[in-house]
Amino acid sequence: MIIVMGLPGAGKSTVLAAASKSTYKMVNYGDLMFEIASKEFGVKHRDELRKLPPETQKKVQSAVGMALSEMKGKVILDTHCSISTPKGYLPGLPYSLLSSLKVDYLVLITAPIDEIIGRRKSDTTRVRDAESADSLLEHDSMNRSFLAAYSCLTGAPALIISNRNGKLKEAQEALLRLLE
Amino acid sequence: MIIVMGLPGAGKSTVLAAASKSTYKMVNYGDLMFEIASKEFGVKHRDELRKLPPETQKKVQSAVGMALSEMKGKVILDTHCSISTPKGYLPGLPYSLLSSLKVDYLVLITAPIDEIIGRRKSDTTRVRDAESADSLLEHDSMNRSFLAAYSCLTGAPALIISNRNGKLKEAQEALLRLLE
Amino acid sequence: MIIVMGLPGAGKSTVLAAASKSTYKMVNYGDLMFEIASKEFGVKHRDELRKLPPETQKKVQSAVGMALSEMKGKVILDTHCSISTPKGYLPGLPYSLLSSLKVDYLVLITAPIDEIIGRRKSDTTRVRDAESADSLLEHDSMNRSFLAAYSCLTGAPALIISNRNGKLKEAQEALLRLLE
Repeated sequence: MIIVMGLPGAGKSTVLAAASKSTYKMVNYGDLMFEIASKEFGVKHRDELRKLPPETQKKVQSAVGMALSEMKGKVILDTHCSISTPKGYLPGLPYSLLSSLKVDYLVLITAPIDEIIGRRKSDTTRVRDAESADSLLEHDSMNRSFLAAYSCLTGAPALIISNRNGKLKEAQEALLRLLE
Repeated sequence: MIIVMGLPGAGKSTVLAAASKSTYKMVNYGDLMFEIASKEFGVKHRDELRKLPPETQKKVQSAVGMALSEMKGKVILDTHCSISTPKGYLPGLPYSLLSSLKVDYLVLITAPIDEIIGRRKSDTTRVRDAESADSLLEHDSMNRSFLAAYSCLTGAPALIISNRNGKLKEAQEALLRLLE
Repeated sequence: MIIVMGLPGAGKSTVLAAASKSTYKMVNYGDLMFEIASKEFGVKHRDELRKLPPETQKKVQSAVGMALSEMKGKVILDTHCSISTPKGYLPGLPYSLLSSLKVDYLVLITAPIDEIIGRRKSDTTRVRDAESADSLLEHDSMNRSFLAAYSCLTGAPALIISNRNGKLKEAQEALLRLLE
């Protein structure tokens, strides 16, 4: 399993598109979580996920972990390194989840902060919170620290891909190298 | 349990004061450690704590962990993210301790380094080692990395509160949001 | 056991030389790995190590961990904090290894990036990849994050020694302080 994470606005989806023709199955953590929550816990809308009582959330997460650990074959898991919330950075791969997975590579897709801000401004298709350069830098830096912790715990290499303006091909090639 | 940590001079106590009227019980790690060490290990002065043989220290720490894990109700644990010593940064929450606790939030209180240096100069009530901006920056950066590791291991969100000059209220509000 | 790691070019060997007259036994992780791989897995050249199938690699690593955990007396383990490869940063001390060791101190030897670049240029005895300042900075920063994760998991203090030009003695003294 290859786990691909990214800072919002770094262009994770675009980089990941390069792997769409590969033999890897793409799994989106959020989609899988909603699928399981709706089947097993009667959740009807994505927004409900955040509002579940902590204990139900843990049950959902543990069911997602179970589902992931039982997946056969080559999988690319598309998820967050950490999610920035008003109550702090939520780890995308807490140890309780990580310890049930067999991870081959950990990938963090990021980009220079000023380029991310520029892209966010010009992207009118998504509503994203306007974040200051300072808080983006902090998030990016925390993501790298989380990445190191994930790598230490799993033993999997931690690859940082910088998806710079005009260098998408290089970013995609760095990802494809892992699929060979 | 909410664990609040801070870089010395960042104003942890002042920010924490906002929670004094809450329903949370405040527990200071250092106080608890000394209490247990004096009761169970005959330690008479705080200074003795550091000079205990490593094996006794581990016993004390494990007794503190036990006491913390048995605490009922809402607790704010006031401790260090890491302690800067001549032999390296000592983790405030080693995994051996962390794994015995049920952590809801991890909070790191910090501040811009130049403001910390300014405050330390004007604070004549405490004797603190004069630290260079470089070593403060290094400590702050290591604290953030420790924070990410703690967050990954517990699954608890990691909140960084920057307690800027003239912005104490904002810092306190960020903390109070977690107590609701 | 004291584990000493370093950014390539930071002068780890030179700093470590100060400990050669101590009562500590020096163990190089790479040497030990090759010794075990050649004895138990028929590996003939160092280069073969990297090319082993992942499962054999894990067996070798686990045998190295076993050998390290069985070592008696004072040991300085000389290894990498993380290895920069085209597929990502490989953790030098994955948790699977770390959890089998009794670690007293973790040491990272580093240096200002511009000094490392200068030293690499003038060192004609080793062929090192020409690395950009950006990627060296990234590696150094990831090493510090790995260091914090290792420290949290083991409880051992994390010492960062900056081996600046003309300050070798200070760097060596910082290391020798741990051996007392």
